[in-house]
Amino acid sequence: MQFLSDNTASVHPKLWDAMRGADAPDAPYDGDAVSKQLDAAFGNLFGRECRVLWVATGTAANCLALSSMVQPHGGVVCHREAHIEMDEGGAPGFYLHGAKLMLAEGEGAKLTPGAIRAVIDPIRDDVHQVQPHAISITQASEYGRSYRPEEIAAIATLAKERGLGLHMDGARFANACAFLGGSAAEAASRSAGEVDALSFGFVKNGGMSAEAIVFFDTALADVAYYRRKRAGHLQSKGRYLAAQLLAMLDGDLWLENARSANNAAQEVASVAADRLIHPVEANEIFLRCTPAERAALRAKNFDFYDWGADAARLVTAWNTPQEHAVALSKAIASL
Amino acid sequence: MQFLSDNTASVHPKLWDAMRGADAPDAPYDGDAVSKQLDAAFGNLFGRECRVLWVATGTAANCLALSSMVQPHGGVVCHREAHIEMDEGGAPGFYLHGAKLMLAEGEGAKLTPGAIRAVIDPIRDDVHQVQPHAISITQASEYGRSYRPEEIAAIATLAKERGLGLHMDGARFANACAFLGGSAAEAASRSAGEVDALSFGFVKNGGMSAEAIVFFDTALADVAYYRRKRAGHLQSKGRYLAAQLLAMLDGDLWLENARSANNAAQEVASVAADRLIHPVEANEIFLRCTPAERAALRAKNFDFYDWGADAARLVTAWNTPQEHAVALSKAIASL
Amino acid sequence: MQFLSDNTASVHPKLWDAMRGADAPDAPYDGDAVSKQLDAAFGNLFGRECRVLWVATGTAANCLALSSMVQPHGGVVCHREAHIEMDEGGAPGFYLHGAKLMLAEGEGAKLTPGAIRAVIDPIRDDVHQVQPHAISITQASEYGRSYRPEEIAAIATLAKERGLGLHMDGARFANACAFLGGSAAEAASRSAGEVDALSFGFVKNGGMSAEAIVFFDTALADVAYYRRKRAGHLQSKGRYLAAQLLAMLDGDLWLENARSANNAAQEVASVAADRLIHPVEANEIFLRCTPAERAALRAKNFDFYDWGADAARLVTAWNTPQEHAVALSKAIASL
Amino acid sequence: MQFLSDNTASVHPKLWDAMRGADAPDAPYDGDAVSKQLDAAFGNLFGRECRVLWVATGTAANCLALSSMVQPHGGVVCHREAHIEMDEGGAPGFYLHGAKLMLAEGEGAKLTPGAIRAVIDPIRDDVHQVQPHAISITQASEYGRSYRPEEIAAIATLAKERGLGLHMDGARFANACAFLGGSAAEAASRSAGEVDALSFGFVKNGGMSAEAIVFFDTALADVAYYRRKRAGHLQSKGRYLAAQLLAMLDGDLWLENARSANNAAQEVASVAADRLIHPVEANEIFLRCTPAERAALRAKNFDFYDWGADAARLVTAWNTPQEHAVALSKAIASL
Repeated sequence: MQFLSDNTASVHPKLWDAMRGADAPDAPYDGDAVSKQLDAAFGNLFGRECRVLWVATGTAANCLALSSMVQPHGGVVCHREAHIEMDEGGAPGFYLHGAKLMLAEGEGAKLTPGAIRAVIDPIRDDVHQVQPHAISITQASEYGRSYRPEEIAAIATLAKERGLGLHMDGARFANACAFLGGSAAEAASRSAGEVDALSFGFVKNGGMSAEAIVFFDTALADVAYYRRKRAGHLQSKGRYLAAQLLAMLDGDLWLENARSANNAAQEVASVAADRLIHPVEANEIFLRCTPAERAALRAKNFDFYDWGADAARLVTAWNTPQEHAVALSKAIASL
Repeated sequence: MQFLSDNTASVHPKLWDAMRGADAPDAPYDGDAVSKQLDAAFGNLFGRECRVLWVATGTAANCLALSSMVQPHGGVVCHREAHIEMDEGGAPGFYLHGAKLMLAEGEGAKLTPGAIRAVIDPIRDDVHQVQPHAISITQASEYGRSYRPEEIAAIATLAKERGLGLHMDGARFANACAFLGGSAAEAASRSAGEVDALSFGFVKNGGMSAEAIVFFDTALADVAYYRRKRAGHLQSKGRYLAAQLLAMLDGDLWLENARSANNAAQEVASVAADRLIHPVEANEIFLRCTPAERAALRAKNFDFYDWGADAARLVTAWNTPQEHAVALSKAIASL
Repeated sequence: MQFLSDNTASVHPKLWDAMRGADAPDAPYDGDAVSKQLDAAFGNLFGRECRVLWVATGTAANCLALSSMVQPHGGVVCHREAHIEMDEGGAPGFYLHGAKLMLAEGEGAKLTPGAIRAVIDPIRDDVHQVQPHAISITQASEYGRSYRPEEIAAIATLAKERGLGLHMDGARFANACAFLGGSAAEAASRSAGEVDALSFGFVKNGGMSAEAIVFFDTALADVAYYRRKRAGHLQSKGRYLAAQLLAMLDGDLWLENARSANNAAQEVASVAADRLIHPVEANEIFLRCTPAERAALRAKNFDFYDWGADAARLVTAWNTPQEHAVALSKAIASL
Repeated sequence: MQFLSDNTASVHPKLWDAMRGADAPDAPYDGDAVSKQLDAAFGNLFGRECRVLWVATGTAANCLALSSMVQPHGGVVCHREAHIEMDEGGAPGFYLHGAKLMLAEGEGAKLTPGAIRAVIDPIRDDVHQVQPHAISITQASEYGRSYRPEEIAAIATLAKERGLGLHMDGARFANACAFLGGSAAEAASRSAGEVDALSFGFVKNGGMSAEAIVFFDTALADVAYYRRKRAGHLQSKGRYLAAQLLAMLDGDLWLENARSANNAAQEVASVAADRLIHPVEANEIFLRCTPAERAALRAKNFDFYDWGADAARLVTAWNTPQEHAVALSKAIASL
């Protein structure tokens, strides 16, 4: 039973249908009828104007978004364990032409205004030190923690005061929205409203190959449009990516999928409160777990990653079967 | 009737089946069972060892291949009208970190050893001038011309003499192979055998989102593996790309599709010999054609691009209906 | 007798004095008392506000200036034979992070609005083609031709219309000013007034290691300040560079030196009117000259560069002895 | 009395003489007679073959050296407080095209094999994480600590085992050599012998504008030759830089100057043993010192930098007058 990652889950049937439905030839790149609906569809979801670019990966989404805010001689404040720092193979250095990631601390891989200030306040305002140009936060965080709207607002306020761009890596934005509750649109709108650009992830949530970069500061999209092509990310048959995104928004499928994954995670978490390293606020579970215990779980056919010597990371997906989650719960309870 | 480009054609049904067939979760990125078959499958096709990376676009394929051969302070000799110079939004400058494209002349957008020498021989061997590190040729060329194996061999010999890498942009490599005839594998192997890396295009030939970078100099692949991730082109569900490629190779579907497109182009060309600006050696037709004639064709519902003031470009695709090609032939004949 | 280049001439004695005069310790980088006088001194010369950065080379000056106007995904229109294209070892590709040089034609290596439009008008306004961000002209040109103020104004007008930055490579700006006549400040001011940034060269004019980047669009200097440090061009003992620049401005030494070089060039040109490939409008002479004639000149101890098969380039410097120029004139006359 | 930094000290009179002595025109760039002596002169000093490039700044020296060892997708292990990380305005990101600095801990800003392994061992050997390509150490360190030859040898061994380049930032290499004692050549040779490239600093040691990049792995110099020009650091009158370097080597002036600075530092340190934050192993003194004490020193006309809230950094130079050092000692003793 698969708890390794949500990034290999099957594609949702509605997305297959949507892609097949877009199979007739149309204008290439993003000139097709489907791509043209994205701005409005996401604008409707967030309740405000936005411009939307599809790309195939979260790394491309993050780095293109940041490249619209950060000059080559600037820096990006992010968490020490942020995906852009740890797991993107140096893509920010490439896309930002050598700009610097400035690493901040923070519980649960979340930033706070204080943690950000601890990084940027000591920077001398001279040419010998790289100056920050933007902040990047991750919703939900690398440890599956969700920023509350007021937490984001506080960071956004700091960003504005300091003249910094604000980017949100939302590889699991859907899971955060599902966790935060309220209507999907409200939750999303409130939490994203103050960021300049959001990498809105769909691949981990039942998509095949489409992520959305949502620019709330629409002027930034002008730069990203050119940079996407320059990075080889402007696919000629973009309608198949756009179709995935529209299908995800349609009837809030994205939220339904995320709720499903989150519920499975809560099912597991509910029996393991004393083992949780982080509160489960999305679809990732970090469990204290000895090597022997991990071996026991694997013997029962559960797949997951070790997380250092004494922990395990378990991730649920949109299609994690309820019975797998239940089985995992029982297995953990019986350790 | 659609003769605008092959880059928007529908996806071949066998590829849809292959993608659906790969829908079960597997290892992420290129660790899945399908991706692991690529080296062998392409090795079999070309009759020699090779290493193969999937990417989503031809621009990424070209630039990643070149980035494995060209240092940031070097240059790439290519045709003045090559895709990397004209239509990739500056991607080579990005991927090669500022290396320079060195533009050569050549009929039909094809290079010759003489044309290459005309560019590189005048370069002083000092640090004030950018030194060439590689040559890039396009098979079939921007004007739908196919290099004969001996033409490629002559360029490859020059490249070796000068210590330059040799890259082939094969966005329409299938069409060139189909035109050159012989068995598909032979033709491909003979023409590609001396290049270091080939961008083998499938998207224009019935694919959805998968191109192959085929490294015949397998050491170069080591660099490209890192660079692909760094460029945000390592999709987490890579199995859907690999599945497209395998389905294309299976039963030589790639060649069948290309023959189909080429045949449609020949159908049109056969009636328009006196109008052809370039011999038709793939699936592109460049016709001398007045504005009035173009209007007449469009009035009959044919879609295509103007090519300057007095010409039209018409492109056929794997699924161009025979009756459309016939109808176009008649319409041209009656101009 | 030395007519190879002005770029190896001795340092003017007044500059040695000025550097020695700056020898006492002062604040590092550009915080010293001498550096702080530059904005005002150049502002006084040009009769308008400007911000001035010293750097050690013309290549650094050109590329830092351009990097303040051109984004990595943009391009710079310059002459096909411009120094930035031909002789800077790919520095623009490095400093501009892969931006593209767009090569225009033009007699005497000078651009015209028409030549610039011939390059930029065919560029499709889409993401597939690199868009121009700036124009770079060279005063005096690579062939020693000087732009008249109205020629620059016409280019500046075009630049403004199209939203492009305008950079002037003034490696031999002094020689152009001296040729154009009028008071130095007036001539300079009129010709430089419409450019955004000027690389004002001093090394070829009797300096040791100091060039000035003069920003008339002072906002651009903010970027260049950071980029200079980032490029390793912020010398810690910058006062020795600033001292060179101030000494050059003092009493219009720069103009005196340039006049001296220009006069020597005119001395030579006056006897060789029928051999001149380009009018002599600065301190460079391009002579039609057979190999045998060149050998004859060299036999008389004149050093110079061949310029292709049938020409020679002769360059005079601030300290070319009058008798050398006369001797060369006679030698040419007697060919 | 000046204890702010050694980077603003006057130029040594012998260097003025040497520069004046090189004033006659010679071949441009590094083709002159003086530049051509550098490889042999440094080879003689180090007792082994090397290739030497002059540049104007330590930042350029460090980054050009590293750019010859590190690909854009790689990383450089350095100390968290290394100059390349803290004080070079992001130059490594620029010169290395986005490669990553990987920050290690270590007392006195020195690295150890253990500290390096703590950084590189956890890096997964996959494309998602940046792989190290080189190590950079600083001799003397940012805190004026000198690596002993055996310490360097241990790091060099690790570098070789892991296939990593080894660079030494020797902005104060002379001071380290002077501290380590033995004959200058021996000490330098032993400590530098295992590094691939050394940035050998002279500007802080009585130079004006010349640093040397010394390549012991001479193949690396091939890349750096092109990169120096590409970075705008190939001055046309390079003979004035080469002359400074030769004058420094002549009669071991570099060592004499460094000893002088070190002696002044020891004079001060000798009275302040209980206040020293770091042992004084070069020409920098880090003193525990309250704000009131610092004010008292400044009232006596001593200039220096605060180092955080409770410390001061005092730096001596080649020409720090003995009486200033004595006066400072007394002032500190009387605090």
